[in-house]
Amino acid sequence: MNLRSEGWNLAIIGATGAVGQEALKILEERKTPLKNLYLFASSKSAGRKVRFCGKEYTVCELDSHVFEKSLDVAFLSAGKERSLEFGGNLARQGVRIIDNSSAFRMDPHVALVVPEVNWCDYKNYKNKNIIANPNCSTIQLVMALKPLQKYGLKRVVVSTYQAVSGAGLKAMEELKEQTRDYLSGKELKNQVFPHKIAFNCLPHIDKFDDDFYSFEEKKVMQETKKILGESHLAITCTAVRVPVLGAHSESVNIEFEKPFDLDVIKKELAGFPGVKVLDNPKEHVYPLNIEAIGKNEVFVGRLRRDSSVKSGLNLWIVADNIRKGAALNAIQILEHLS
Amino acid sequence: MNLRSEGWNLAIIGATGAVGQEALKILEERKTPLKNLYLFASSKSAGRKVRFCGKEYTVCELDSHVFEKSLDVAFLSAGKERSLEFGGNLARQGVRIIDNSSAFRMDPHVALVVPEVNWCDYKNYKNKNIIANPNCSTIQLVMALKPLQKYGLKRVVVSTYQAVSGAGLKAMEELKEQTRDYLSGKELKNQVFPHKIAFNCLPHIDKFDDDFYSFEEKKVMQETKKILGESHLAITCTAVRVPVLGAHSESVNIEFEKPFDLDVIKKELAGFPGVKVLDNPKEHVYPLNIEAIGKNEVFVGRLRRDSSVKSGLNLWIVADNIRKGAALNAIQILEHLS
Repeated sequence: MNLRSEGWNLAIIGATGAVGQEALKILEERKTPLKNLYLFASSKSAGRKVRFCGKEYTVCELDSHVFEKSLDVAFLSAGKERSLEFGGNLARQGVRIIDNSSAFRMDPHVALVVPEVNWCDYKNYKNKNIIANPNCSTIQLVMALKPLQKYGLKRVVVSTYQAVSGAGLKAMEELKEQTRDYLSGKELKNQVFPHKIAFNCLPHIDKFDDDFYSFEEKKVMQETKKILGESHLAITCTAVRVPVLGAHSESVNIEFEKPFDLDVIKKELAGFPGVKVLDNPKEHVYPLNIEAIGKNEVFVGRLRRDSSVKSGLNLWIVADNIRKGAALNAIQILEHLS
Repeated sequence: MNLRSEGWNLAIIGATGAVGQEALKILEERKTPLKNLYLFASSKSAGRKVRFCGKEYTVCELDSHVFEKSLDVAFLSAGKERSLEFGGNLARQGVRIIDNSSAFRMDPHVALVVPEVNWCDYKNYKNKNIIANPNCSTIQLVMALKPLQKYGLKRVVVSTYQAVSGAGLKAMEELKEQTRDYLSGKELKNQVFPHKIAFNCLPHIDKFDDDFYSFEEKKVMQETKKILGESHLAITCTAVRVPVLGAHSESVNIEFEKPFDLDVIKKELAGFPGVKVLDNPKEHVYPLNIEAIGKNEVFVGRLRRDSSVKSGLNLWIVADNIRKGAALNAIQILEHLS
């Protein structure tokens, strides 16, 4: 039985958050066949009405009632704690979980999937009922690394320029409000971020580990290895929040094992599904976060040879972190299920 | 004769620009002994009154009259064209030029100086009457690299997060105005930058060369080699404008020849004149551009071992690009002259 033909019984857990909202938008755009749609959120958002495909849905509080629904798939984007509390039990009940938190990503029995990159690996993982959606910064990185993997990834150095939307809707409001207050000479208040974010760069995303890396940086390093199937990949990352509303950018330096031709690499990137090359800097053409917002593609540009190593490449990768970095990738996973 | 005792006859060319204005502020702060101060700018700013140490100065138009003044030193910060037009001739007349443009930086007869790093090299350059002030991004980078040079700089990978102040006062106004317009739902206008800068990252600073690097990126790579006296240093750079008003940040990855101890490196950085280490990320202590504005120090933090190579280090470097990155560094050069 192909569930897609009669439609999915789908739950969105975290339906009122930035990713949940974007997921609803994308499901509508892509006309994903749904039989029943259930929306869950925290008690604070419960009771809220949401329009989807011309119908009104009431958001329910996420509690044990979720286990009574007849679900095929649940998309979880309500934080790691909620995923740990509800995801495992739903999966044991036979519900297929597409989880957007970091709860299961590094579980050796759970697939961590960017469909264009490694859908083929899903069959090899033991726990078929949980599929982890990678970290937003990881997704756009592996989309650009995958078509270049054949040159041998000797080492990858990543610096991120991440949008506040990755920290949720409240964070977007905080950036706007602080900016407004700054420009009108008022005192700035911060609640979401540990420091002011208006006109400021914060080299701090998620908590810090004992080795002084942030967990965001470790996610990029560890998840990239798992997705590309290169457990010994030499990779390092510095993750920085910048005062932009949407779409993450990444400055990426790659050292290859093998020699390459820059024009061939441009073609290989352009030919990879989901990647769009924007690379004519003299004509001011390169990926820009404000132009990536609301788009499905991962944009790659500023390609140039790095002569500081034998076979080096610099590039600039931009994608909508809420779309390809989260909601779209999850829905693409759903589209691969049968 | 030590000119410092009776005071300098100093001209500031580009006196109404962001760097010229900051230079005046710093000269006043540091009580630099001046006998006569002459302020020059473009015809557009000529006639403007500027207060300095309680006295009013009239800004003169920069033209051939500058050659009639009895000058000891001229500080040029009015762009490369003006430096080429006036700098060389003033120097031939015996005036000592401290030039903030890229006009003379790579001239093999001209010293490129960050006083804490390489003042000692000045004596070895043939053209004693021109001293080049390095690019802002280069200055803060070499301030952190110098104390670590003894470990052998095998390779350096830099990604910058540069403030709009580096593009001048008009650019700062453009960021503020576009941001205001965005937040009130108005159409955004751009004149200084090739794309909108409000809530956007532009991987584009200065023009682009045929090898697809921007000249800003090439300045960082070439000037760092010259200042550190390592003409074969393996270094690459990606330069990005971010929507912050002041102070540049840099994500820097260093591969050393020799092993190092992280705590020792912290101490060595902290002990280098002009460098301040801010590095306790769990307590949310790391360099921030909004806190670096108006400060003289180069702030270094987020120090951590990069295990993707044998002896790797990641760090985050922040400094006020108009101060240590330009005006302060120039005045420190002046202070070394006698």
